[in-house]
Amino acid sequence: MKLKNDLLLRALMREPVERTPVWIMRQAGRYLPEYLKTRSEAGSFMNLCQTPELACEVTLQPLRRFRLDAAIVFSDILTIPDVMGLKLYFVSGEGPKFENPIRSAGDIENLPSPDVSESLGYVMDAVSLVRRELNGEVPLIGFSGSPWTLATYMIEGGSSKTFSKAKTLIYQEPGLAHSLLGKLADTVTDYLNAQIESGAQAVQIFDTWGGALSSQAYQEFSLRYMARIVSGLTREHEGRPVPVILFSKGCNTQLEALADSGCDALGLDWTISLSEARNRIGERVALQGNLDPAVLLADPEVIRKHVSLTLDSFGDGNGHVFNLGHGITPDVNPDHLSALINAVGELSPAFHQAP
Amino acid sequence: MKLKNDLLLRALMREPVERTPVWIMRQAGRYLPEYLKTRSEAGSFMNLCQTPELACEVTLQPLRRFRLDAAIVFSDILTIPDVMGLKLYFVSGEGPKFENPIRSAGDIENLPSPDVSESLGYVMDAVSLVRRELNGEVPLIGFSGSPWTLATYMIEGGSSKTFSKAKTLIYQEPGLAHSLLGKLADTVTDYLNAQIESGAQAVQIFDTWGGALSSQAYQEFSLRYMARIVSGLTREHEGRPVPVILFSKGCNTQLEALADSGCDALGLDWTISLSEARNRIGERVALQGNLDPAVLLADPEVIRKHVSLTLDSFGDGNGHVFNLGHGITPDVNPDHLSALINAVGELSPAFHQAP
Repeated sequence: MKLKNDLLLRALMREPVERTPVWIMRQAGRYLPEYLKTRSEAGSFMNLCQTPELACEVTLQPLRRFRLDAAIVFSDILTIPDVMGLKLYFVSGEGPKFENPIRSAGDIENLPSPDVSESLGYVMDAVSLVRRELNGEVPLIGFSGSPWTLATYMIEGGSSKTFSKAKTLIYQEPGLAHSLLGKLADTVTDYLNAQIESGAQAVQIFDTWGGALSSQAYQEFSLRYMARIVSGLTREHEGRPVPVILFSKGCNTQLEALADSGCDALGLDWTISLSEARNRIGERVALQGNLDPAVLLADPEVIRKHVSLTLDSFGDGNGHVFNLGHGITPDVNPDHLSALINAVGELSPAFHQAP
Repeated sequence: MKLKNDLLLRALMREPVERTPVWIMRQAGRYLPEYLKTRSEAGSFMNLCQTPELACEVTLQPLRRFRLDAAIVFSDILTIPDVMGLKLYFVSGEGPKFENPIRSAGDIENLPSPDVSESLGYVMDAVSLVRRELNGEVPLIGFSGSPWTLATYMIEGGSSKTFSKAKTLIYQEPGLAHSLLGKLADTVTDYLNAQIESGAQAVQIFDTWGGALSSQAYQEFSLRYMARIVSGLTREHEGRPVPVILFSKGCNTQLEALADSGCDALGLDWTISLSEARNRIGERVALQGNLDPAVLLADPEVIRKHVSLTLDSFGDGNGHVFNLGHGITPDVNPDHLSALINAVGELSPAFHQAP
């Protein structure tokens, strides 16, 4: 099956494109009424994730509305700890929780190494199903949380503001932290490779909480494990490269180190200009981002202006994938996302030569 | 009254010191049992702030326990919006709230320009009282929130994760945002000058939420107003310079611009190494920081190791004030702060030549 629109894959490999491709983190999400309907019918968020037909349905919903250049399989970043026995659940308004968070060294030593293609077979089934339904229209992105980000939830038992338990572990018992992170890195590698095997054409690692770490701790406890994953991934499948994107929120002081991790592209949050990022890391990797999600709360003409500023900031040439700097928020009017996507479509060809 | 210990003031002006001075953001805070006792006796947090004798008492408490090189007057960053009529109150576990948040353009136009030396006279009284009680032992720091940080609370009505209302204002109605920020900058200037007049020997501007802004928006809506304040401050009083510290959390991509704002020192969070910061901005300003507050949850020997790493990272020479990268958290054992302060005292002379 030849891919009809491969703009994303070309841009991630810094190959020439006619216009800048665009996808949106959390594009299948609560700002869409059809998502809320399917989620409500699913009964629970976990059931939505674990039922391939429903996960496929919500994955495709934003593509029916918007001219997006990629799909991203609908799932949660915490599926891995769930099948390691921590048992993920959601409390409305409080975010994710674990029934059995990590409480001791023994809990880390006894963590199983799950066969993710088996225990997370529902994700692989969703990937296969979405690929079939997409019918080559646009590429499909697979993803995982980073080891550090997974570890924070596993140790804190849920979301945290200060990460006091996770940080006490890395500062007080770094050897134990490395043991946990190593297990997670191996499992994430297997997980992403299984997604690629099932049809994911690019993968993104979400290091949502990398920015909570000091510069030194970031390199030792987060970046090192992402680099290990990158080096273990299947980088070519179905006859073409499978690009790897690292998204480390709040880690803009680490750009050079991230660019040297072996990945193909960096996802950037909105706190750095694309021009500065490009100046700092040159043409080593592609850049993905980075509009402030809050711009989508403003009127369409304001959105268009900020899309233009973002494209200008990257400037001419290859290697830009348009995205927000973080996930789209539930309070966004879907018509405003249309305004963004239309603006990227209309304004971006001027930054690319016809191939 | 000659100051007996002026290490802080010398370090902030990048003059030679025998050892690195240390103070701790939120050093008068909930990790101290004596603070909790006084706060409980005060009846409410607002009463604690508004009663100069009580504010003085909690300001001095950490200095009785620890060999700190500065006091910082106990107050809240939101006193200015309170006396602009928004009426600050606190809900236990939820943080600050305003009874009358900004809801319309009219609310911004009608905001009064308070005479802060009058309406915030209780802060000036606390400053005078602390100076008297300190009796020249160590210098006293005054402070304010930055205009942008104050504006976020005023518009959101309290704390926020996404700052959706405040950001909608800057993106949708930038002129109105500038009107609000300009008023706040003028009031903050008056407020800090009144603190200096009452005896504050250095001042710090807390830009707690600057890091929520995009690079461009940060320069336009936060940094510009801090620079305006800096240019309007009394820079010499009682025959010596009054150093100005800017602390912009999460703004490490902006270091060069911050260093050019006219301030004397930058407070840094822990996500950048001091060596990188120093490499980037050279000797233009002093640096304050930047240990991860979570290090204080580890054992004393771990704390000592990280103090050593932080001192090493800055390296030899003038212009370092030791601090955490953000406020000390309520779960810290006060003995651990002693370990930090002792380590700075013991290890830092090696980085300074005897003057």
